[in-house]
Amino acid sequence: MRDILPADKARRERVLSVIRERYLAHGFDEIETPALEEYSRLHSGMGGDNEKLAYNVLRRGMDAEAIREGAEDAAALSDLGLRYDLTVPLARFFASNRGQLPGVFRAIQIGPVWRAERPQKGRYRQFVQCDIDIMGDDSSRAEAELMVASLDAVDALGLDGASVRINDRRVLDWMLDAFGFTTDERPGVLITIDKLDKIGPDGIVRELRERALRQAQRPNEEAVDAFEAFLRRPQTMEFNPFGERQIRKALPENAPDEIVDHLVGIGEAVAAGRGTEGDIPLVFDPFLVRGMGYYTGTIFELAHPSVPYSLGGGGRYDGMIGRFLGQPVPAVGFSLGFERLVDLVELAADAGAQAVVLVHDPDVPVAELVAHKAALIRSGSRVRLERRVKNFKALLERSAADGYTAFATVSAGAEVGALELKPLT
Amino acid sequence: MRDILPADKARRERVLSVIRERYLAHGFDEIETPALEEYSRLHSGMGGDNEKLAYNVLRRGMDAEAIREGAEDAAALSDLGLRYDLTVPLARFFASNRGQLPGVFRAIQIGPVWRAERPQKGRYRQFVQCDIDIMGDDSSRAEAELMVASLDAVDALGLDGASVRINDRRVLDWMLDAFGFTTDERPGVLITIDKLDKIGPDGIVRELRERALRQAQRPNEEAVDAFEAFLRRPQTMEFNPFGERQIRKALPENAPDEIVDHLVGIGEAVAAGRGTEGDIPLVFDPFLVRGMGYYTGTIFELAHPSVPYSLGGGGRYDGMIGRFLGQPVPAVGFSLGFERLVDLVELAADAGAQAVVLVHDPDVPVAELVAHKAALIRSGSRVRLERRVKNFKALLERSAADGYTAFATVSAGAEVGALELKPLT
Repeated sequence: MRDILPADKARRERVLSVIRERYLAHGFDEIETPALEEYSRLHSGMGGDNEKLAYNVLRRGMDAEAIREGAEDAAALSDLGLRYDLTVPLARFFASNRGQLPGVFRAIQIGPVWRAERPQKGRYRQFVQCDIDIMGDDSSRAEAELMVASLDAVDALGLDGASVRINDRRVLDWMLDAFGFTTDERPGVLITIDKLDKIGPDGIVRELRERALRQAQRPNEEAVDAFEAFLRRPQTMEFNPFGERQIRKALPENAPDEIVDHLVGIGEAVAAGRGTEGDIPLVFDPFLVRGMGYYTGTIFELAHPSVPYSLGGGGRYDGMIGRFLGQPVPAVGFSLGFERLVDLVELAADAGAQAVVLVHDPDVPVAELVAHKAALIRSGSRVRLERRVKNFKALLERSAADGYTAFATVSAGAEVGALELKPLT
Repeated sequence: MRDILPADKARRERVLSVIRERYLAHGFDEIETPALEEYSRLHSGMGGDNEKLAYNVLRRGMDAEAIREGAEDAAALSDLGLRYDLTVPLARFFASNRGQLPGVFRAIQIGPVWRAERPQKGRYRQFVQCDIDIMGDDSSRAEAELMVASLDAVDALGLDGASVRINDRRVLDWMLDAFGFTTDERPGVLITIDKLDKIGPDGIVRELRERALRQAQRPNEEAVDAFEAFLRRPQTMEFNPFGERQIRKALPENAPDEIVDHLVGIGEAVAAGRGTEGDIPLVFDPFLVRGMGYYTGTIFELAHPSVPYSLGGGGRYDGMIGRFLGQPVPAVGFSLGFERLVDLVELAADAGAQAVVLVHDPDVPVAELVAHKAALIRSGSRVRLERRVKNFKALLERSAADGYTAFATVSAGAEVGALELKPLT
């Protein structure tokens, strides 16, 4: 966990307000859920590996000594936890409040989540997630609305040229079936496929054989061979243009129409929403896996040419809300990698807004200082008072670094509203 | 704890952005500290009664079963806690980051805090606090900057006419000394004085006598008599104008010059900052107590004629940071009652921004819908897609309630950019 200092905080707030404004324009509604959820809900199996990272919270404000001595009713100790993502709380929120929400509900959630991870560079135990989700729409419109809104948001952050890698969990399942892998083998094979970018086809084939041997099982040679043949087939991967032809070329023959049509429909709708009919900002990647176990359909990641990692991602999780609500509700979500975006984005402070440092002698009466400050604020400036110090140059440099654009010196008796402002550069 | 639904969330965000914008204009810098702090820091005595309400957090993501069985290293169980206010974390932040902060540091903090209270109407276990603090300035300028900025913020929220009730802890100490109460009796007497508004002078005198009897002690009759004589002295309380004359009239004779001058200085500076020289929005109240034990000087509360409760408050706590840093740093803070303000304020949604609901037939292709939506977003509107339902009127009413201002119906093949918008009223 970390403290966030003024310059950093200002940048974070600017990025958030750009994202929020864009998502609101696209018809999403912001909601908020509590940081604490019931322990049982956070540990229902839907949170995947993150469940192990949940901070457990003691229900009452109790003395740690009492806990150590076992003095308190054990059952009451830890029935709450800090949320580790915004998806499990959203499913609970939707189930609790459905009667007050539109039939198709488009949610924005922006807030901190907590994971009890070992500290490591670039990973924090408290960080902000920034999600949009659409509940109640099983058509490709939902994916398209998420993607168009998110591409618009990263455009507004100055990151034009982003694109979306897309796949479908059902494509993966069907493909592994077609190669001859059994349902039991599927989760292990998916973990391996997820490494394709890193270890290449040779690595994939080796790992698939080794996995079986490690488990003292006969490798599924036929399936591995079929997969290898597919990986090494003579073809140039066509990433463009996105559409039925490219999708079918990237897959074994006879891919199911229903899934291909859904993907094609998303592409057409995203192109319509982006106003780029000839150039669809989607790339079909039949080996995109994404880790979370709750995905049931499309999965996708946001890519930008300036960085090798993804800037966000999401997918369809049609099964989750049904577990809370008792009746199925289709759902699809997209999470922007807020912490990564903040590092990447250079957003200027509000252009046009003047920020003035008033450097004053120690003998200027307080009421005069406050009057000078108020007059400048009324004229639309941001104003900071600083007492003159010996190293005047350092004071001005530090003020400029803090985002101030002008300064004035103030002596006792100066006329309010008539200070001479000089630029800070 | 509670879920916050879209209309409520939108109002909260609007209120926050108004407050944030005003505080930034007044030269305050926003910072953020983690929600979790070290247990020992939250329980160092500085948090007063709130310490008992801290949620304790288990350091690692452990299974509750393991805890109940006592399987885990007890010492590692609960060394973290959720913050119950923003003041204790700020003192820690300042001590940790002082080298990177200006000599006089003006902080904004806006964020959730948690208190393990019994649920009751209007009290939440998670709520937002909204604080400004000034560290490193022991002059009346600090109080004046806090008050001018906060009055400006509530003006911007549409709550003109607010004023500040002010007192000084040193005034209370001196006054009780003057009546003849001992230092030991002081805390109990202050708890009683805090009820003056509710129980009146008779109640005060009765309670002071009863308290001693309850503790099987002889009441300090002389002191109670002196206090009673003061309370009942023939005078009309003069609330205006704020200044030396009013302050001295409201106190026993010979109040210390230093404290009176500090208060008078704040009044002059606030008047200068508000541009209301004749009419200082301050009221001296010698019986204002405020509960927190860490206050050492001025204490104040924000009052508004429309409500009987305070809308915020604060005070000077010159001792606290020294406990973290080892050297004294003057500090004064002001906390706006965000949750109360949200209930009180009627802020219109961004005027001028058009929000359009597109009601479509079920047969309109997804790509067409997304294109219509995108065209309107590009023209500056907020847009929501809704499938036509039988009860069309109810759909429009719900859209209007959600803040939408116009609608259009969409049929298959309609020209993009040429939808006829009708007002939603």
